Amino acid sequence: MRPAFDPTLYLVTDTALSAPRSVPDVVRAAVAGGVTAVQVRDKTASRRELYQLTLAVRAVLDPGVALFVNDAVDVALLAGADGVHVGQDDLPPAEVRALIGPDRLLGLSTGDDDELAVALALPPGTVDVVGIGPVWTTPTKPDAGTGLGPGGVAALAAEAAAGGLRSVAIGGISAERAALVTGVDGICVVSAVCAAPDPAAAARALRGAR
Amino acid sequence: MRPAFDPTLYLVTDTALSAPRSVPDVVRAAVAGGVTAVQVRDKTASRRELYQLTLAVRAVLDPGVALFVNDAVDVALLAGADGVHVGQDDLPPAEVRALIGPDRLLGLSTGDDDELAVALALPPGTVDVVGIGPVWTTPTKPDAGTGLGPGGVAALAAEAAAGGLRSVAIGGISAERAALVTGVDGICVVSAVCAAPDPAAAARALRGAR
Repeated sequence: MRPAFDPTLYLVTDTALSAPRSVPDVVRAAVAGGVTAVQVRDKTASRRELYQLTLAVRAVLDPGVALFVNDAVDVALLAGADGVHVGQDDLPPAEVRALIGPDRLLGLSTGDDDELAVALALPPGTVDVVGIGPVWTTPTKPDAGTGLGPGGVAALAAEAAAGGLRSVAIGGISAERAALVTGVDGICVVSAVCAAPDPAAAARALRGAR
Repeated sequence: MRPAFDPTLYLVTDTALSAPRSVPDVVRAAVAGGVTAVQVRDKTASRRELYQLTLAVRAVLDPGVALFVNDAVDVALLAGADGVHVGQDDLPPAEVRALIGPDRLLGLSTGDDDELAVALALPPGTVDVVGIGPVWTTPTKPDAGTGLGPGGVAALAAEAAAGGLRSVAIGGISAERAALVTGVDGICVVSAVCAAPDPAAAARALRGAR
């Protein structure tokens, strides 16, 4: 059985943007402010560092807040995370599902209709949630392409929902823009929380806009 | 039960040094020349690329030639590799053993007495083989420190053997220098084979020197 997962406000961590605060400190504050799910992402960390970071984040999370690990299936398994999130360059979803078994969540980044179609063609239960984006171009992921815009995101989210997948939007979402994003089950943020002077207040503002 | 593993001449792949040839082509030639074990290493590849590379290398290997994957435990499991090799920055050996179970090989890089002592203090059966090095400073891993020299390697190899671990030496080993390396169960090479105009001939020369 899959762990509980509320995608309403999904935080993706960024170690550099969180500094000089630690990632666990930012996560703790963000959850207090209303973050409902957390993905540990650090593309520059060694596997060992990522494992230690994931354990440290897990230690500050309530059981009701789902913890995902970006890319590193081995780290997710070892750290007892609730799920894994993979991009198009990471291990393919069917292979990840084979490794993680039926009791963990799997998220997949999709940036266009073709990538979503591949996700929808997988056996039911392979992927649980698709990340759709970028909504707007974003400085934290400059290689992610031009923005889909809220209309493009809503169209992909409707396709995902029709195929039984939940969806979260990602890319350039701020408290000001959050209300513009519709059709998805939740929004993902990175810099809007990790770079905020007060991550708890930033999370509250984002929740207030949904 | 662990797979068969002959460490006599252990090739660690390097995608850039192999170019314009493919890594599987270099591996195939090197095995024909006498390589007895292969580790797929590519620190710049995405997880998906590393998975595909590992499958491609596996497809050209005889069952008697053990296949290791560097660092990526998830890739090793998915690709059905015989083992995993981890460095000091990768997932800790006890955790890797928990993930791979008893039927795969685990190698660990050790560069000094302290790192070897940690490996020897692990429960028996955690680590199978330690990589000892660098023997000499090497351009393919400039961060690996100054060379231990053949004497330093032999001393560490004796400690490893006394503790029940097999050992391979790595770092700057060429056909000319291979006979200077003693006390270990095998030698690892990267550039001596991957950068050679004729990888099969290079492997034969290295075997001839052991």
